[in-house]
Amino acid sequence: MKQEIYQEIKEYFLSKFKELNIVLTEEEKRNIEIADFGLNNIKVSGLQLITYINTKKVCSKDLVLLPNQTCPEHKHPKRSFDDGKEETFRCRSGVVFLYVEGKKTVNPAVRPPSGDEKYYTVFHEVILHPGDQYTIPPDTLHWFKAGNNGAVVSEFSTTSTDEEDEFTDPRVRRV
Amino acid sequence: MKQEIYQEIKEYFLSKFKELNIVLTEEEKRNIEIADFGLNNIKVSGLQLITYINTKKVCSKDLVLLPNQTCPEHKHPKRSFDDGKEETFRCRSGVVFLYVEGKKTVNPAVRPPSGDEKYYTVFHEVILHPGDQYTIPPDTLHWFKAGNNGAVVSEFSTTSTDEEDEFTDPRVRRV
Repeated sequence: MKQEIYQEIKEYFLSKFKELNIVLTEEEKRNIEIADFGLNNIKVSGLQLITYINTKKVCSKDLVLLPNQTCPEHKHPKRSFDDGKEETFRCRSGVVFLYVEGKKTVNPAVRPPSGDEKYYTVFHEVILHPGDQYTIPPDTLHWFKAGNNGAVVSEFSTTSTDEEDEFTDPRVRRV
Repeated sequence: MKQEIYQEIKEYFLSKFKELNIVLTEEEKRNIEIADFGLNNIKVSGLQLITYINTKKVCSKDLVLLPNQTCPEHKHPKRSFDDGKEETFRCRSGVVFLYVEGKKTVNPAVRPPSGDEKYYTVFHEVILHPGDQYTIPPDTLHWFKAGNNGAVVSEFSTTSTDEEDEFTDPRVRRV
């Protein structure tokens, strides 16, 4: 990723946190993760996040999405120590369009990134406005996209092991 | 608790959340918990909280403390399904003076509620400003008190079973 894009996105992240009066330590500011999933098109497919805590039992993160940015479809499969990561998304600002396994929504509010449609297979829509939350069970495919104003989402979950996530798009490289 | 006190504290809670731009649903607003621990002196000993999620694995709450209010000393003992609740406190606003098991701090910043000193036995001080966090292992005694401007604290933890908490003060009634 070009340094100027990285810097622009980091500034966006910090401006969203400032709007919400979320305080980060200097170390946390240095550890903001900007993930393009190896797709090299971060303003379309990507995710920004800060991990507050990830113990052997629980994990807490805040996620920031750019306007209309999509986090690609994936699931958290069974691991050596459990049935997979369970995660709850709670929308803090903006709007998030979340798609999970289940009955396909007939007229979804948003579409997968153009050209990548074949890597998106679940279309049960859950719309999260600020204060709304949804729990995704382990081993369940899901993807999500922000609305026009981006979004901030708090994630509460069991232990996070990003390297074990399974993405539908085989081009994805996590970490 | 007198209705007027209850209402005053609820309004304080909501004003703190408004300052931080934390959005609650109407149902959540109705479910704000105002706990005086049966001590009938809530402005001195008590805690206000909202539980966002409490699954069989993880729990997420936000806690609000009134100015100089103390949450009495307690621990989360071993349960049928684990070694006890593990919890991380992250300060969002104000200052929290947390005391846990360990080497006694010589000149602690604050004291237990006057008259209740005998029910406070741990004095290893951890001071949390906004952005600071601390993880309390299972089965570990702790208590905490807000500074002059109150505090908002996010709690990420394993499953919460408040009824199993063990308080040092035998007068405490939880729930």
